[in-house]
Formats: sequence, structure tokens, C-alpha cells
Amino acid sequence: MWNEIAEQPTVLDRMLGPEGRATAARIASAFTGEVRYVLIAARGTSDNAARYAQYVWGVRNGLPVGLAAPSIFTTYCRPPSLGGALVVALSQSGRSPDVVAVVQEARAQGRPTLAITNDLDSPLANTAEHVFPLEAGPEHAVTATKTYTAELLAVAMLSAAIRGDVPDGELADIPQRVAAAVAGAEETRAAARAFNRVDRCIVLGRGFNLSTTFEWALKLQEACSIAAQPFSSVDFLHGPIAMIEEGFPVFAIVPAGGRHDPLRRLVSELSARRGADVLVVTAPGATYATGVRRIRLSGAMCEWISPIVAAVPIQLFSYHLAVERGSDPDSPHGLAKVTTTW
Amino acid sequence: MWNEIAEQPTVLDRMLGPEGRATAARIASAFTGEVRYVLIAARGTSDNAARYAQYVWGVRNGLPVGLAAPSIFTTYCRPPSLGGALVVALSQSGRSPDVVAVVQEARAQGRPTLAITNDLDSPLANTAEHVFPLEAGPEHAVTATKTYTAELLAVAMLSAAIRGDVPDGELADIPQRVAAAVAGAEETRAAARAFNRVDRCIVLGRGFNLSTTFEWALKLQEACSIAAQPFSSVDFLHGPIAMIEEGFPVFAIVPAGGRHDPLRRLVSELSARRGADVLVVTAPGATYATGVRRIRLSGAMCEWISPIVAAVPIQLFSYHLAVERGSDPDSPHGLAKVTTTW
Repeated sequence: MWNEIAEQPTVLDRMLGPEGRATAARIASAFTGEVRYVLIAARGTSDNAARYAQYVWGVRNGLPVGLAAPSIFTTYCRPPSLGGALVVALSQSGRSPDVVAVVQEARAQGRPTLAITNDLDSPLANTAEHVFPLEAGPEHAVTATKTYTAELLAVAMLSAAIRGDVPDGELADIPQRVAAAVAGAEETRAAARAFNRVDRCIVLGRGFNLSTTFEWALKLQEACSIAAQPFSSVDFLHGPIAMIEEGFPVFAIVPAGGRHDPLRRLVSELSARRGADVLVVTAPGATYATGVRRIRLSGAMCEWISPIVAAVPIQLFSYHLAVERGSDPDSPHGLAKVTTTW
Repeated sequence: MWNEIAEQPTVLDRMLGPEGRATAARIASAFTGEVRYVLIAARGTSDNAARYAQYVWGVRNGLPVGLAAPSIFTTYCRPPSLGGALVVALSQSGRSPDVVAVVQEARAQGRPTLAITNDLDSPLANTAEHVFPLEAGPEHAVTATKTYTAELLAVAMLSAAIRGDVPDGELADIPQRVAAAVAGAEETRAAARAFNRVDRCIVLGRGFNLSTTFEWALKLQEACSIAAQPFSSVDFLHGPIAMIEEGFPVFAIVPAGGRHDPLRRLVSELSARRGADVLVVTAPGATYATGVRRIRLSGAMCEWISPIVAAVPIQLFSYHLAVERGSDPDSPHGLAKVTTTW
């Protein structure tokens, strides 16, 4: 897991090369024409990359994006009519049978399909009309890291290509930003040490970083066996806030920008008024209540790019916390790399 | 909360009367024509009713259903192009500003809109083209119960009306089934007592009852301040299963039918092999490993109807558990009935 976290700048830099950019430009045409909306099939970590796509393609490209319920296609064998849909599958292995089933059905209905996958020989790559290869190299740790950020970057590159943005643009310095985040491992380790006895926590975020919020919780569940619950901060206020008592661990992703002042205020109040033990991954310079612990992202960046960079501290945090707790983050108990649906 | 749980048979019976059936038949026409997919805006408990709609309208009516990310419309002010969409809002109060914003945008784009709400004078009811009134009467407890099952029934009635099913049909005996479930309060209280010291748990389910799974977790969070995590059993196998250790409380909804044998086997194995403390809400006669505790649903019923009935034991369980733990289920700490988005 450690090696694969550290490989991320190289993987992302490779994707941003001429070949990757040409792939993005070619596939962007599948998003136009009579496509009314995008339906994404994904599971696990890839489902969190799908949450990123929902915001990126929604906010930047005006495309409604829905997450498919694959069991409608498989367990119930009642695929809906997909007229107007572009069907996108996200899967590092390309071998989740229910994700493949959604793409098969879309092809049978004559709909455009795209697979974003790390395995060009997989059933998924062989089924979809278009394939965006991640070329992240083999991922050995059961807990996905480099294929997650590669999936996010593929989503971002497609967004830029659909808009016809100039090559490079806002994406060009992602590998350096990710490298800077990898270099911040020591700060993250110190933060992890403060939480080495927790058995439950909540993770809060919004918007583009809802992806990071859910991925952080999943990493804590997988690698550290912590009952970590992710919430959109809005849904959190609709009920789950009732759980917060003195000492309850609350993790949050708060990117820069006045748009997220309410979330900043919320986590400060959870700390100051309810005594929650709060840790935020945040931009440098943001102010919080005194007791709030911080992991700082280096430098200012566009919010829509921030989930690719913010993925690193949450991976490092989960890795260090697993090691602190005596778990093996490479092969958590009871997990297989490719999950077959029961 | 107790009174409102007990009122449910009356509320559901009223909805199934001639007026409610005429409303469903009239609104069903909004689902046809050039509607390619349904986009639902909802928060909190209503979001769980939206999960039910995703399966019911998907499996029974062939309609792809996506859950909107309201913040794309509000925080980011970048509403996507909604061509092909029918926009449905679910909200008991009709006053969540971000849910109203999604419907306003859909109307501005000339799309058909439907509000399913308990308040005909609300901003939501005044904004949407079509309104399905729940007529559940005022709901005083902060934790929604009767408006949740009323929302589920509205979704089911619309599904039947879109198919042109004979009036009554499979829906007719829902009020009696719900009354039988309310009468099972004592069995549920005994089950709740066994878990009165837990501070975290997971809740598992699939398909139509993914709604029940998420709603059970939400009720436990709100009313009992328990860190309850809901998972589709498939997503659970993709990582979170690593959390399960000796004594970990696992709740599951397992309706009748061979389709759910894998879930039945999974919960039995979590009990027998990992020592999880398992409670299932299940059909009579289903077999499980020895240690698995059960709450039995009375009688056989179609799986697609079962979430309306299964809602009752999970409400009763949460109510009794809150009382056992000395919490006030009517006004959990830090919650307001109408949540304004931060």
C-alpha cells in the first residue's frame, strides 16, 4: 500500500502524456450527440470515483449523472430502458460481474458505453465500446490507492476534453501537487497517532469532495477495521448529528473557498460546543476553533481538482493508522482484491 | 414517535382510498411520453424512500432512476441540462430549500415535475407541476415514521398506476400487514433489549430493501445516537467486512425468496465464523445459523411490497432501543424537524 501511494505522481504524470490526452479527446465525442444523461456502474472504491464524476460532469459539463443499482440488472433481471443514456463503468480489475452485466445490457440496447479500467484484457474492457486505460500498473495491495486517483484523473481529463479546454490547463500540475502531498507523510503520521484507539468515527464533506469523504471512510473500514461513517454535511444535519458526544472522532475535508464556510463553521462548532475530536484536511490559512486538528494541503488549487490531491493524505492517514494499530493494510482480514457478488 | 408508528395502518388505508387512487392514476401520465429517466431530489428519511423508488420504478416500470446531488443546483449554481428527465421531489415538510431549488430549475427548463409531500401549502407543493399529497396528518416527532411509509406507498401506488394494474391488487392488504407488524411490538422490544449497550453496528440489505437498510441505520443514528452504518451487502463485501470482529452487532433485512439466499448465508457466516451478534428481520420459516436472532415478518408477501411492512419493526426496534437507553426518541439532541442547509 505504501509503495502504491508513493507511485501516484508517476502514474498520474503518465496519464497526462500525449497518449492519454489523445484517448480523452477521442472518447469525449461519446458524451455528446443524443446523450441526455450518464449512468455509472461501479462498486467499492470505484463507486467513490463515480461520486466525483457526478459532480465534475454535472457542474462543469452540464450532464446529469446517476449511479446505477447493478442488482436491478442482475439479481432482478429487469434492466430498465436506457434510451438517452451513456453508460460508464469504473472498475480497476474490470472483473466485477454485476458491473460487466450493466455494460452488456447497454450494448444490447445499442447505447454508447465506456469502461475506465486498469486491465485492458478484462471482461469489462472487452465488453465496452470505448475504453479509457488507467495504465497504473498492477495494484497488489487489497486497499486501492493509485487506481483510485487514476480513475479521478480519467474523469477530470474527460471533463476537460468535453469542454475542449486547452491541453494541460488546470490539470498539468496535479502530479507535482500529489508528490508534495506524498512528501507530507510525516505530518499525517502524527495526526494518525492521535486517533490510534478509536473504533468508530464520522467523516464529513460536500460537493466535489464527497468522493474524498466516502473514500476516507472506506479506507478506514478496510485498512483499520474502524466503523467510519461518511456523510454529506447536509445529510449529517438531517439526523446523524444526534450521535455526536464528547470525544467522538470527526474527520472532515474542507477545501478552500468561501463556498465551504458553512462546513468550516460546522466542524468548529462540533469541536467547541459538543467536544468532538475533530481533524480536518484543509487549505493552508483556514481558521478553525482552537481544538481542531489539521492536515494542510499544500498551496491553493481549484476546488474541482482538489479531490485528486486530497486523496493522498487520507490514504496516508489510513495507512499509518493501520500500522499504528498493528493491522496489515496490504491484506485486511476477510478481503479479496476482486469481489464476486454473492 | 410511538403514536405515529401506531397511526400508520390508518394513514396507509386512507391513501389507498378512491381519492388517492385517482391521484395516482392522474399523475402516472407524467411518467410517460418523452420521459427517459427520473431524477429524484430528497434528503434524510425521504432519501431512503428515493432508494425504494429507484428499485420499484426501475424493476417494475423499466425507468432508470437517479438520485440528484442538490448541491450541484445550489452550492455550485450549475444545474445540468435536464432534457429527458422527470424530476420528482420527496419531502415530508416540503421546505428543504435545496430540494425546492431542484424542482424550480426543472420547471424553468420546462421539464415535468412531481412533489410527494405531506404539506400542500409548502414551497415545494407550490413549485411542482404535479403534487401527490401524503395526507399523513401532522408529524410531531423529529424522527419521521408515518411520512416515510406514506412516501413508500405513494411510490408503490404510482408504480401500479403506470403499469395500469387493477385497483387494489397487491397493495390492498398493506394496511392489515402493517397493523400486524405494529402488533408485534413486544417481540421487537425483547430484541432491542439485547442490544442496549451497543454504540456501533452495521445494517445489511439489498435491492428493494436497501431503503429499509438505510432507514434502519438512520433511525438508530437519530433516535439512539448509535453509529449505525448501512451497506448494500455487495458493497459490504468490497471492504467494510474487514471491520467485523467477535461481538460486532450486525442487523440485516432478509425478505423471503431464493434470490436472497446469498444474503441469508452471509449473515449466518458472520455469526458462525466471525462471532458477530446478528439480528435479522426476516420471513417466517427461513433458516439461519444457531446464534442468529430474528424478528419475523408476518406472512408471505411480494418482495417489492415488503419494505412498507418491514419499516415497522425497524421503527419499533429503534423506538424501544432509545427508551431502553434513556434517550428521548421524540426530540433527539441537536435535531430540528426541518433542516435548513448550511
